[in-house]
Amino acid sequence: MKTKLFLSGLALALCSGYSLTALSQAKPDVLVKQRQAAMTLQGKYFGPMAGMAQGKVPYRADAVAYNASLLNALSRMPWDGFTDATKDVKSAALPAIWSDAAKFKQAQDTFQNAVQALVSASKGGDEAATKAAIGAVGKACGACHQDFRQKQ
Amino acid sequence: MKTKLFLSGLALALCSGYSLTALSQAKPDVLVKQRQAAMTLQGKYFGPMAGMAQGKVPYRADAVAYNASLLNALSRMPWDGFTDATKDVKSAALPAIWSDAAKFKQAQDTFQNAVQALVSASKGGDEAATKAAIGAVGKACGACHQDFRQKQ
Repeated sequence: MKTKLFLSGLALALCSGYSLTALSQAKPDVLVKQRQAAMTLQGKYFGPMAGMAQGKVPYRADAVAYNASLLNALSRMPWDGFTDATKDVKSAALPAIWSDAAKFKQAQDTFQNAVQALVSASKGGDEAATKAAIGAVGKACGACHQDFRQKQ
Repeated sequence: MKTKLFLSGLALALCSGYSLTALSQAKPDVLVKQRQAAMTLQGKYFGPMAGMAQGKVPYRADAVAYNASLLNALSRMPWDGFTDATKDVKSAALPAIWSDAAKFKQAQDTFQNAVQALVSASKGGDEAATKAAIGAVGKACGACHQDFRQKQ
């Protein structure tokens, strides 16, 4: 029953195409904190999957499916936090986020598409295909960080 | 298509009943950072809904449905970060989290059930019922903070 409610709610929500940004009146430092929180949690749920894809952690199909589903939700969360008002807040964000907004948007889309492909793969029962999909998500993370995040 | 993949992945994941905790080998300070990130994002998506329920922000059914669906995912994320190993990490967590673990678990369940009820209400088209469901989520947040979080 809980699962049914969860899925029904998501179906409605995702069909609406609503963007939160229009409602957001958060201060710039709050926006930065929120987008960093989304990245932190993406790391929490992606990390174990990366370990499995690399053979460092035993592969568990149920863990991948669970983590991929939460990563899917998280993949929608950081982007409205990169408003112009946050340009001068101290963070690892590079100026290219704002000077090359189209490329940044493309990098977001590549990442979100990779996550959705992973969600699909994770329910297919093909371990090799799922590991490849995990790798594609990791590549999308890395490519975006390469262009838009200060070297750590 | 993307929506279909998202929902299918979630269905599989939520049926599996998998707990991430068994995989987690994160250090205590990382666990605290991750659980705080989940709370930060719960605030991001709950805040505008609370404003609508209180009449401070114009009510938008599509915004509530979207935010409720993401809050549903986020409502699953903080709890495995409250491990015994994090007891001594500086945070607003009160000792009662560990000394009264059953009550803490009950507070989590009350919150998650309230969020799922909100997801359901948000697709029913009844503004008053949805606002009441938002209020119930807020009450669950507050009750847990009252017992388990230092006064801010």
